[in-house]
Amino acid sequence: MSPSGQRRISESTVRRLSVYLRFLRELTRQGRELVSSRQLARGCGTTPAQVRKDLSLFGSFGKRGRGYTVDELRRTLEGILGLGRRWRVALVGVGKIGSALLGYQDLARRGFDIAAAFDSDPAKTGQVVSGVRLYSAERLTEVVRMQHIELGIIATPPESAQAVADELAGAGVGAILNFAPVEIDVPDNVTVRTMDVALELEGLSFVLTSGDRMPSRK
Amino acid sequence: MSPSGQRRISESTVRRLSVYLRFLRELTRQGRELVSSRQLARGCGTTPAQVRKDLSLFGSFGKRGRGYTVDELRRTLEGILGLGRRWRVALVGVGKIGSALLGYQDLARRGFDIAAAFDSDPAKTGQVVSGVRLYSAERLTEVVRMQHIELGIIATPPESAQAVADELAGAGVGAILNFAPVEIDVPDNVTVRTMDVALELEGLSFVLTSGDRMPSRK
Repeated sequence: MSPSGQRRISESTVRRLSVYLRFLRELTRQGRELVSSRQLARGCGTTPAQVRKDLSLFGSFGKRGRGYTVDELRRTLEGILGLGRRWRVALVGVGKIGSALLGYQDLARRGFDIAAAFDSDPAKTGQVVSGVRLYSAERLTEVVRMQHIELGIIATPPESAQAVADELAGAGVGAILNFAPVEIDVPDNVTVRTMDVALELEGLSFVLTSGDRMPSRK
Repeated sequence: MSPSGQRRISESTVRRLSVYLRFLRELTRQGRELVSSRQLARGCGTTPAQVRKDLSLFGSFGKRGRGYTVDELRRTLEGILGLGRRWRVALVGVGKIGSALLGYQDLARRGFDIAAAFDSDPAKTGQVVSGVRLYSAERLTEVVRMQHIELGIIATPPESAQAVADELAGAGVGAILNFAPVEIDVPDNVTVRTMDVALELEGLSFVLTSGDRMPSRK
């Protein structure tokens, strides 16, 4: 049991909830009102039984024989995932990947606003890229605190990632998405996820080499 | 058991093997010859017991009281992961994320060469970006077959991703890394992994909202 008294939900369940939500938002754009567990499963690469099991964790939304109401289920999932609000994100490192993230409109569309970006290159300081102000890395703690930023993205070279993580954690950021291909340590009250492109490709290399047919991850 | 007769290895184990390998390569650069399971665990965000369990799957490398030989363990992990060779990769979609991947040197450093890139914008065709030739998307099947490309990366807008996946699979690509924030279907003999930045941020949003302290993923 978590401190909130709810059953603890696994990372893979949360991942599926996000995938359901992504699909429900698409159905909303298409003006669809109802969706069956079969359709949800098909659109999200899972089984109807898994869909029903996942959604039953949060109460019953299905109407017998009619399926789920798209809008209601979408709002419920947004609530569970903490997406009934917008999140302010600090991006640290404005190289190739950082620049791509600055211009990546899917983030804002899904509730994440890059509120400030930081780079150690003085030539970049003061610029506004894709509507986001670039600050000197020296001002990280100050700006993160001042702007009440809760999420950080690290897109620095690997050798700087740990120091940046330390500073983000010290400034009160509770969760970090790390694109630097290196292990970073954080205090227990901070959560890190690392997205390492080469590491994902290595997983695929293993599949192609071993002949193990792992399930695709959506 | 997989067709190869080996025990089936879970995706999370493969992921940890990649993280061990990343760390061992760093130790090699530092000229280190030996590493203990405790040091490996510390550098990879896991426990010594987990390290020993993972590595025992592939035979015994540890020397009692001395630890593992960095070079030997590194080569063994490279072999298991299918990294004793280079992989040819097709990149489809040269927008912001695709361009960042083209210039991302960590891929080549870890054995993945983007052999050809494709975009539907005629203005980009014929350019050479970061040493990689950009082809018209119409030539995808032809070039992938001609160049014996085995891995594909999709970095197109979501509405094009399925058609690109179909074409990559048809051209003989066995594994796809998908950056488009959408579910794609592939035949059983093709493996897909999706990297969706907003989906990862949603997982962090859940953690910050629910108070569930999930283990960090390295």
